[in-house]
Amino acid sequence: MRRYGILSTVTEFQLISAIQPLLTHQPQVVAGIGDDCAILELGGPNHVLLKTDAVVEGVHFHSSTEPERVGHKALARPFSDIAAMGGTPSAAVVTLGLPGGFDSERVLAMYRGMNALAARHGVAIVGGETTSNPGGWLVSVTVVGSVPKGQAMRRSGAQIGDAIFVSGELGGSLDGHHLDFEPRLAAGKWLRETGWVHAAIDISDGLTGDLPHILASSGGLGAELLGSAIPVSRAARTRFATGASSKPPLLAALTDGEDFELLWTCAPGNAVRILDGWKAAFPEVGIRCIGRVVAEPGVHLRDAHGIQQLPDTGYDHFSPAV
Amino acid sequence: MRRYGILSTVTEFQLISAIQPLLTHQPQVVAGIGDDCAILELGGPNHVLLKTDAVVEGVHFHSSTEPERVGHKALARPFSDIAAMGGTPSAAVVTLGLPGGFDSERVLAMYRGMNALAARHGVAIVGGETTSNPGGWLVSVTVVGSVPKGQAMRRSGAQIGDAIFVSGELGGSLDGHHLDFEPRLAAGKWLRETGWVHAAIDISDGLTGDLPHILASSGGLGAELLGSAIPVSRAARTRFATGASSKPPLLAALTDGEDFELLWTCAPGNAVRILDGWKAAFPEVGIRCIGRVVAEPGVHLRDAHGIQQLPDTGYDHFSPAV
Repeated sequence: MRRYGILSTVTEFQLISAIQPLLTHQPQVVAGIGDDCAILELGGPNHVLLKTDAVVEGVHFHSSTEPERVGHKALARPFSDIAAMGGTPSAAVVTLGLPGGFDSERVLAMYRGMNALAARHGVAIVGGETTSNPGGWLVSVTVVGSVPKGQAMRRSGAQIGDAIFVSGELGGSLDGHHLDFEPRLAAGKWLRETGWVHAAIDISDGLTGDLPHILASSGGLGAELLGSAIPVSRAARTRFATGASSKPPLLAALTDGEDFELLWTCAPGNAVRILDGWKAAFPEVGIRCIGRVVAEPGVHLRDAHGIQQLPDTGYDHFSPAV
Repeated sequence: MRRYGILSTVTEFQLISAIQPLLTHQPQVVAGIGDDCAILELGGPNHVLLKTDAVVEGVHFHSSTEPERVGHKALARPFSDIAAMGGTPSAAVVTLGLPGGFDSERVLAMYRGMNALAARHGVAIVGGETTSNPGGWLVSVTVVGSVPKGQAMRRSGAQIGDAIFVSGELGGSLDGHHLDFEPRLAAGKWLRETGWVHAAIDISDGLTGDLPHILASSGGLGAELLGSAIPVSRAARTRFATGASSKPPLLAALTDGEDFELLWTCAPGNAVRILDGWKAAFPEVGIRCIGRVVAEPGVHLRDAHGIQQLPDTGYDHFSPAV
């Protein structure tokens, strides 16, 4: 993990940990920092969900990336967080930081890409702030959504013995998936409505980066994963075979990040029901049961060579990803 | 007004005009781009207000500005938009772009300044995204709030003959007010509750930049201002007297920007009621009736020398302000 800072060496997670105690708690907050979205009680039958996320030129996308894909990614990322809670997005606002001499046609193309995704999900882009940003493009998107009161899928409900599931395939996202993925909004809502999900998160920092968030939030539990069950993407295999990445495919699937798939746990007795129900609802997207929640902290991987503990390192957003 | 762009010359407002037609309308949107905040119908007794705003190092604050004041300003700006609609802010999320080698103590100080303002208004900071931004600090804040259904003060309700009011004093904001101002949340709510306000906005781009937004949104009206009634700040006078600014004080009050005062119109028959009610509710803050709404488009200023039309130029957010 790369470390930055003058007075101290901090990573993103350390910084968030230092910020959190500075913030005053308020009664309208059901969930604040530390879950996929904030959950707010503002009156009415639903809770309001709030999520902000940003993509930065040279960090989350290349300067040469088609602007339509930049706009898609910038909105799809917070959508993925809404999906992980089983919520429905309603509206988005955008802050666009632009360097001097920017190309206004690229700005419009970025908005076209963003609006195409928004329109598919009935979401309105309702405001924007455009400002100078001398270092390059920065696209910050905030999404507001809703979820029936008390029904949001949280990170904190995993139980010992739970089956661990993941949607889609993992690894090799830099091949293009990180720009073009479709956030799992319908699937997240479906999972919530089953009532069987104990805990959920979206995978943005890699399986080994995000599964620990569920385990830590659920009282300090652990997980045992089955290596042969991890759904390794074709992109992860190809990137290794062609030398585009030095990571063996399974390692890529565990650690690459930016998969934006759903990761959740449920009681083992409901695992087959979820498998069957998902297959009927979303036949085009696979899901896999990849392991189980255990009492002993840490994430362990079982494969042909035995069991090994995996380091708790995911994708650090201060490290360039492109 | 400075102009940027490679393929075309655009200002912020021209860019927004080009973006707007690209965005799909959705039924949950009561007001989108083109008012101080977006107004959303998400169920429940209130409408949800949504506003995003950003401050950038070297544009909205100096690199040497105390980080507490940067945090205060970053949150106070969207609060001022909520105030202009008569709403109540509930929660905020923050995207913080940081250059390599940032000072983490400054990050914490920024959050302390922001949280102090949030806590005074019962607002929770419920999430944040921290990311690399090679060019310098960028603090983007999104605020969600609420307002009773159908009661938000909009830009669009001004009528011919309306009295035009402004709170506080204008001009010379760079002297410090732009960093330390207290957003007029209580006053905005009070004004809404009178039921007398036809149209309102907060002054961020200067009186001559923002009054035209009310006039254009209200069907293409005009305004006649009385020069001697404009509340010129002591800072605007001092800056001119000392040579810190070359703008005569009245010009500074009309055009400097970043005043974050409220500007509103009401029927002339309610003008004295508003003056008296305000004085009782907020004795420490002055308000002035500065003119009236007229049918002929354009903003005209009447002073000892006669009447002159004012150019429709406010503060352009692509121009460095520090």
